Amino acid sequence: MCVTSRSPTLKVGRSTDLLRRWDVRDTEVVVVGAGLAGLAAARALTAAGRSVTVLEARDRVAGRNHGRHLAGGVPVEMGGQWIGPTQSEVLELVRELGLETFPTYDEGAALTLYNGTLTRYTDETFGLPEAAAAEVYRLQKALEALADTVSLSSPWLTPDAAALDRTTLDAWLRANTGQGEALAFWTGLIPALFSAEPSEISLLHFLFYLKSGGMLDTLLATTGGAQETRVVGGTHRISERMAQELGDAVRLGSPVRAITQHEDGVEVEFDGGRLTARRAIVAIPPTLAGRLRYEPALPGARDGLTQQMPMGSVIKVQVGYATPFWRAAGLSGFAIDLDDALGITLDNSPPDGSSGVLVGFFEGAHARRAALLPATERRAAALAALVKLFGPEAAEPVDYAELNWMDEEFTRGCYGGRLGAGVWTQYGHALAEPCGRVHWAGAETADVWNGYMEGAVRSGRRAAAEVLGLLG
Amino acid sequence: MCVTSRSPTLKVGRSTDLLRRWDVRDTEVVVVGAGLAGLAAARALTAAGRSVTVLEARDRVAGRNHGRHLAGGVPVEMGGQWIGPTQSEVLELVRELGLETFPTYDEGAALTLYNGTLTRYTDETFGLPEAAAAEVYRLQKALEALADTVSLSSPWLTPDAAALDRTTLDAWLRANTGQGEALAFWTGLIPALFSAEPSEISLLHFLFYLKSGGMLDTLLATTGGAQETRVVGGTHRISERMAQELGDAVRLGSPVRAITQHEDGVEVEFDGGRLTARRAIVAIPPTLAGRLRYEPALPGARDGLTQQMPMGSVIKVQVGYATPFWRAAGLSGFAIDLDDALGITLDNSPPDGSSGVLVGFFEGAHARRAALLPATERRAAALAALVKLFGPEAAEPVDYAELNWMDEEFTRGCYGGRLGAGVWTQYGHALAEPCGRVHWAGAETADVWNGYMEGAVRSGRRAAAEVLGLLG
Repeated sequence: MCVTSRSPTLKVGRSTDLLRRWDVRDTEVVVVGAGLAGLAAARALTAAGRSVTVLEARDRVAGRNHGRHLAGGVPVEMGGQWIGPTQSEVLELVRELGLETFPTYDEGAALTLYNGTLTRYTDETFGLPEAAAAEVYRLQKALEALADTVSLSSPWLTPDAAALDRTTLDAWLRANTGQGEALAFWTGLIPALFSAEPSEISLLHFLFYLKSGGMLDTLLATTGGAQETRVVGGTHRISERMAQELGDAVRLGSPVRAITQHEDGVEVEFDGGRLTARRAIVAIPPTLAGRLRYEPALPGARDGLTQQMPMGSVIKVQVGYATPFWRAAGLSGFAIDLDDALGITLDNSPPDGSSGVLVGFFEGAHARRAALLPATERRAAALAALVKLFGPEAAEPVDYAELNWMDEEFTRGCYGGRLGAGVWTQYGHALAEPCGRVHWAGAETADVWNGYMEGAVRSGRRAAAEVLGLLG
Repeated sequence: MCVTSRSPTLKVGRSTDLLRRWDVRDTEVVVVGAGLAGLAAARALTAAGRSVTVLEARDRVAGRNHGRHLAGGVPVEMGGQWIGPTQSEVLELVRELGLETFPTYDEGAALTLYNGTLTRYTDETFGLPEAAAAEVYRLQKALEALADTVSLSSPWLTPDAAALDRTTLDAWLRANTGQGEALAFWTGLIPALFSAEPSEISLLHFLFYLKSGGMLDTLLATTGGAQETRVVGGTHRISERMAQELGDAVRLGSPVRAITQHEDGVEVEFDGGRLTARRAIVAIPPTLAGRLRYEPALPGARDGLTQQMPMGSVIKVQVGYATPFWRAAGLSGFAIDLDDALGITLDNSPPDGSSGVLVGFFEGAHARRAALLPATERRAAALAALVKLFGPEAAEPVDYAELNWMDEEFTRGCYGGRLGAGVWTQYGHALAEPCGRVHWAGAETADVWNGYMEGAVRSGRRAAAEVLGLLG
């Protein structure tokens, strides 16, 4: 149990008075954050006949999903966008909400750029020389064998957890290969998964994450993997449809600032008012959850956890072209660029291929450096990298859009919160354990598909089930 | 320069209106936090003829210095308490404020407990067998040679900074010795400096910290080192005397919640009101500084830094006895216990030795585990460890006091914020660089004696000098 460090304070008179400022009085559950996790929780609670209010800081729902349009009205996602075939909950949700999906374009050859050499390939070599490809594969199998030992529900109970957790992924890789190309490949690839560098991730966290998503091939693959499917119109529509169903229960532009626990309920203070409820579900990234005020103050273990789950660093780039010209050259649009700052590229064109879109990512150290550049220089760096991969046509886009998630006040980084050395084993128990009447959701708290949209949906439903079991 | 990510918002009408709630209208500088850093800043600004208001969240000043009394009226510090001979600024401050000092008791033998063997020693061996002591010394010299290469003002510019920063201290130690006892000694010793485990600290941060304080012997020593001198009545009196001088300029019980920057000033919102000033100095730990609201929102680099400077974990224990009985046995009271949870012990008796006090620390992993125990079990564990070191008399204290700094809402850990792998090189530039009209102070921002009271005082004066240079 999460023991709070002070006795609860009753402020009923004050809250009753302030509630007159807004007409919600009888909410049973307040949900903080209208991303996938929060909305999935609210939907589950509503379906069970409970009254819910969702407080969202932004003037939009969907959190780390966010839709924009490129010139010509092409919808693109500036945040999370892909769904894989084993992501059952989110796929089912998409169907329930009446949204359509389409396959990510995945025909033709992939590219890898490394040390100035551009390699085109259609096999499993990642475009590496044979010896390097074999070593990359050997390391993959070794990591997956270790990952197989991890407890998804309680990673800190994994055999040899302490040793796995005090080691960084970087230290493990360097200790386990002397092959420079394989090391460079792994070091370059990790930010594509975590938006962070291998030294910033505990080996245990990496292994947990691998297993949580079904091992590396599933995480990396387009067809058959985590990038297989897209949602027509954009993934933010999942949240928008859920919010439509919830109607007035979702209140935008209402950043939550404080949560006070009473003996029989909670009082939530947000910009614009206060409301009372029996329980709260906080469905925002742990680092942001740690910035709310709690009364009584949260115990040190929970607070310490939120001090140690920094968000990844990513600037997502969408580049629009008149046509998907790379397709004519037999390219899928998938590229790994180990030389430049835009590490991974995919074809992100609309389903009918009526125009072309390449999506790329500044991730980890690249993102932190790119964020300090003037926007024009960052755009130029992205286009220069695309030209190296796809030729001179890439230099003439019809549109360019980017989103720096580190600057987003109500997310403060993507793809998600990570755990560095030592955190899982010492603080993991506090990640999803409720603190009194406050429950925690969000993709970071999921044991299956942690960090993905699927994990977000699952976490929201898990938190809703916790609350339903306690509301009586 | 710290570029803010949104344009400033003018809310003059609103702030003027709200200022009527409190009578401060003409403050030139607002300081957030009345610890040593904030008060030293305020004192320097006042001395330069500037008007200052210090907003303190707690109902007391002194932050991580905190005085209590054991039974019989013996004053003890529950937070930072020692001053070393090279800590010139704080020593001079103590003198200026008319406080008296006395030497930490340091006569007789020290103790080391390791693998069930209690060793008594008066030399430099730390009570280790000869081979282990030699290996400990060899590692110390190797680390100090590396530390000597570090840039104190800009650690990220240190030669080979990237490699030093992606390595944890744990990985370095394991790669550089195969001697089990020496490794155990180092692994057990590090939490005494950082309240964190070697895997949680980047090698670059460790090296920086070593050099910042004048290398390891200085950090560890009593006489001639960082534990040499105590303040009569307690170190919190330094802050109390500064606060007395500042009079009404210090406002207690006023947690700051938000800082809004305008074109020509700042507006600070705290529990109880708002005030305006030309500039702000935020003198609280980075992780807590990251929890304030800023408008415009701070840039991603600064925010990301605050996500990655977790506070150390410590529960400080003061145990009072009728007499300092260990002195009669020829013991100094200094002990390193590698077997139990109370890692380091010192004699903390009052200057006249009229009663005995032993001070001990649950640190790092020990502290995190001990925090989850019931108070009676934690006390029993502490006393059992002291009995092993000092004999059965240690089982019968006249008083026992402890403070879990992780539970302190307005500190959230001690001794200070640390940097794990990768943070110095990617985020270090944002540590002390002002963001517009907001300046940063606190022991974590100091280049000399980083993390110590000396660093706190220096950081406050540095921030005050920044502000004075800009106020014109």
